[in-house]
Amino acid sequence: MNVKLRNSFLESFFNPSSVVVIGASNSPFNLGATICKCLHEYTGYPHPVYAVNRKGEEVSGCPGFASVRDIPGSVDLAVIITPAAVVPQFVRDCGEKGIRNIIIESAGFSEQGAEGKKLQAEISDAVRRHGMHVMGPNCLGVLDNHAKFCCFYGAYKEIVDVFTKAGSVSYIIQSGGVGVVILESIMDDIVGLNKMVSIGNKSDVDEADLIDYFSHDNTSVIAMYLENVANGGKLMEAAQRSRKPILAFKSGRTEEGTAAALSHTAGMANNDAVFDSACRQAGIIRLKSISELHSMPKMLTEMPLMTGNRVAVFTNSGAFGSITADLLVPAGLKMPRLEDATRERLGRIGGVFNINNPVDIGPAPPQTYLDIFEVLLGAGEVDGLLLASSIWRDFIIDVMKELVKMCKQYHKPAAIYTPNSVTRILSARRQHGLPLFESPEEAVRALAVSHEQFRYRRRKEELHGADH
Amino acid sequence: MNVKLRNSFLESFFNPSSVVVIGASNSPFNLGATICKCLHEYTGYPHPVYAVNRKGEEVSGCPGFASVRDIPGSVDLAVIITPAAVVPQFVRDCGEKGIRNIIIESAGFSEQGAEGKKLQAEISDAVRRHGMHVMGPNCLGVLDNHAKFCCFYGAYKEIVDVFTKAGSVSYIIQSGGVGVVILESIMDDIVGLNKMVSIGNKSDVDEADLIDYFSHDNTSVIAMYLENVANGGKLMEAAQRSRKPILAFKSGRTEEGTAAALSHTAGMANNDAVFDSACRQAGIIRLKSISELHSMPKMLTEMPLMTGNRVAVFTNSGAFGSITADLLVPAGLKMPRLEDATRERLGRIGGVFNINNPVDIGPAPPQTYLDIFEVLLGAGEVDGLLLASSIWRDFIIDVMKELVKMCKQYHKPAAIYTPNSVTRILSARRQHGLPLFESPEEAVRALAVSHEQFRYRRRKEELHGADH
Repeated sequence: MNVKLRNSFLESFFNPSSVVVIGASNSPFNLGATICKCLHEYTGYPHPVYAVNRKGEEVSGCPGFASVRDIPGSVDLAVIITPAAVVPQFVRDCGEKGIRNIIIESAGFSEQGAEGKKLQAEISDAVRRHGMHVMGPNCLGVLDNHAKFCCFYGAYKEIVDVFTKAGSVSYIIQSGGVGVVILESIMDDIVGLNKMVSIGNKSDVDEADLIDYFSHDNTSVIAMYLENVANGGKLMEAAQRSRKPILAFKSGRTEEGTAAALSHTAGMANNDAVFDSACRQAGIIRLKSISELHSMPKMLTEMPLMTGNRVAVFTNSGAFGSITADLLVPAGLKMPRLEDATRERLGRIGGVFNINNPVDIGPAPPQTYLDIFEVLLGAGEVDGLLLASSIWRDFIIDVMKELVKMCKQYHKPAAIYTPNSVTRILSARRQHGLPLFESPEEAVRALAVSHEQFRYRRRKEELHGADH
Repeated sequence: MNVKLRNSFLESFFNPSSVVVIGASNSPFNLGATICKCLHEYTGYPHPVYAVNRKGEEVSGCPGFASVRDIPGSVDLAVIITPAAVVPQFVRDCGEKGIRNIIIESAGFSEQGAEGKKLQAEISDAVRRHGMHVMGPNCLGVLDNHAKFCCFYGAYKEIVDVFTKAGSVSYIIQSGGVGVVILESIMDDIVGLNKMVSIGNKSDVDEADLIDYFSHDNTSVIAMYLENVANGGKLMEAAQRSRKPILAFKSGRTEEGTAAALSHTAGMANNDAVFDSACRQAGIIRLKSISELHSMPKMLTEMPLMTGNRVAVFTNSGAFGSITADLLVPAGLKMPRLEDATRERLGRIGGVFNINNPVDIGPAPPQTYLDIFEVLLGAGEVDGLLLASSIWRDFIIDVMKELVKMCKQYHKPAAIYTPNSVTRILSARRQHGLPLFESPEEAVRALAVSHEQFRYRRRKEELHGADH
């Protein structure tokens, strides 16, 4: 089966040649209107956008019609954002108009009792009859940074800022609230967004379809927020086929969290231990906090993968040698004893307080840092570096830039944490494009994630061949 | 034994009536000079500062002398920052001059082998003979925000900014690097610094002495970073005597971390499990990450303590209901089922998606938030609130301000997390003085810390009487 072909229909969801927003009107607080406004005023989307509302009126510069059937010519994608009760009729209208792709953003379906389930069944029926594909219901839809397309309702200016920085990380999310955190946070970081899909109740298109799709587009890292898994087997197969890093945060790890998730998006309760083991089998990196969705990708895009689990710590603040050492072992990593030859080389550099691991220096000139990087990255007993160096002089920034280059030369990663305030870290990261982490915990975690992805990729290559 | 009297000598370390910096000179990169400069130019310290150096020259506006014995009149505090080898002689000079309080910032003592231990013994001998008190060696000394006193060497402008915002949180730290992170980070937060002491090798004054002192001064929260404990029994007794919250982060939880700590500051390896149980017995809240040193105090200064462990979650983003629910139980807290009467009251408000715990609403006007706060804070089955509400409209800020007031009325705390980027959270926190947390993990942890302190305080009151 050709995966690329199978999901090619998704192309029209991300980069449609024309869109109709059904339910967009000029009534106060109308949500559909925010989509018209976003496409027309914020993103620079270059294709036709139509509005459908009772009066057939224009909305935010988008021509209006009383029915999709009145729109001249063909329409590539329909976005429906109306009360749930009238959605099935609009879906049937779309089918008759020949629209093959629909995003239903309205809520009030299988996540809301028997009446909602009945409406959702009606929709599925129409969708099958007309051979359509559906995203949602109960979702935000799609954002494609390169295609300048976004149909998230209520998208405000700060969120649309994300269009100023396109990148290669694609997100599959089962909650708009999580999407907002990611969109805002990615602007604080050095990676850029490629695509984001809010899948909602996933009555048709689900996370597995999207993994297949992102495995063959311009995505470098796939990241997911899930509240439940519709089809575990399908998800595992899609993940196993993919060579790209797949990161997943799933809520519902506890009984309390599962109960809360069920009231939010429709779905079956999934046994968390089963999900955990499925992730390990399928090569999905399971994230430990929601912030890892935006903080971890840079380790995978900016640094080589870590081929082993032996980490050398290098710090200019003794305390952080001890603090990070405490974190490494529980994270599944090791702090190797440095070989005599390595220690000798460190000793010759001068100004090194401690030539053991963690390597600890006092105030030192830039060359001391570079010399130590070279010794540690060159050491056979070291697979990766953890640098915990506070920004006490401006040259530290240049030293860190040099480290990023050296990591590529030595094919070993470094996770960099600067023991400073978050404000100072964020400012240095943005200003200098450095992959800085915000806490020692995050830096250690990034090394663990890097090594986990290395192991998964190697296993997949062994199973399926390197050039699959 | 009168604790207040016993440690009254510490007053002169924080608010000395005159200071001499021994080792401050005009040589390039001289560290002592940075202390003179800091006191003379940055902090506005109003008392005499002298410099002692070979040439007897003035340093950064501070009169210079070749020996402490040449300084006219008495001197309250000496700060010694010279090579280790000459420190014992300067200590003896101070003794003869009648200086009773000394801070030794120089490194190279018991943390550095046999020769260093011998020097430290020489110092201890002189100190005993002259009846002096010593902080350090191998430390940064003292910062008192209210007294405008700071003898941290190398204090740069950004750090000295902390003098623009005095507060009530006092820190005992065993590492300058951790001190820098705290000083920078506290400027991002709403609490202010009272005092900070870097205790280094703690040859004389230790964390227990300082806990006793801070238990009777204008401190509201005592927070510590420790790499080892010199005298466990003394620390436990001091903590047991104190009614104030005592927060401690200790490195050396693992074998690797302990080894690293030993090479940094001198001390015995302490069994971590023993330390953990000592904290529980003595009523010390053990922190889980270095960032909790600056993020947790606001929960204790801005909110009532949580008298039970039952938390109601209230969110305007369904996902965060599930995400926080997952975190509450592992943190030792409970998500109670809301009583029928509570659910009825919530149902009457209108616009509530979910009247169970977590309570979940969509876009709603401010009054809806206030009505829900009132119902939840008024419910007998709820001990505290976790609000996870993204800042989607400006009125959310006003709603949060109102919540802080209502918490005081109801004697129940709320931990507030806004699902937004850290930049946006920090900006709202600074601008509006709100106790906002930066992640759902941090907010849940704050509730757990609040309840832990409630239990410790109650136990101490039962043991020693409420007005001790």
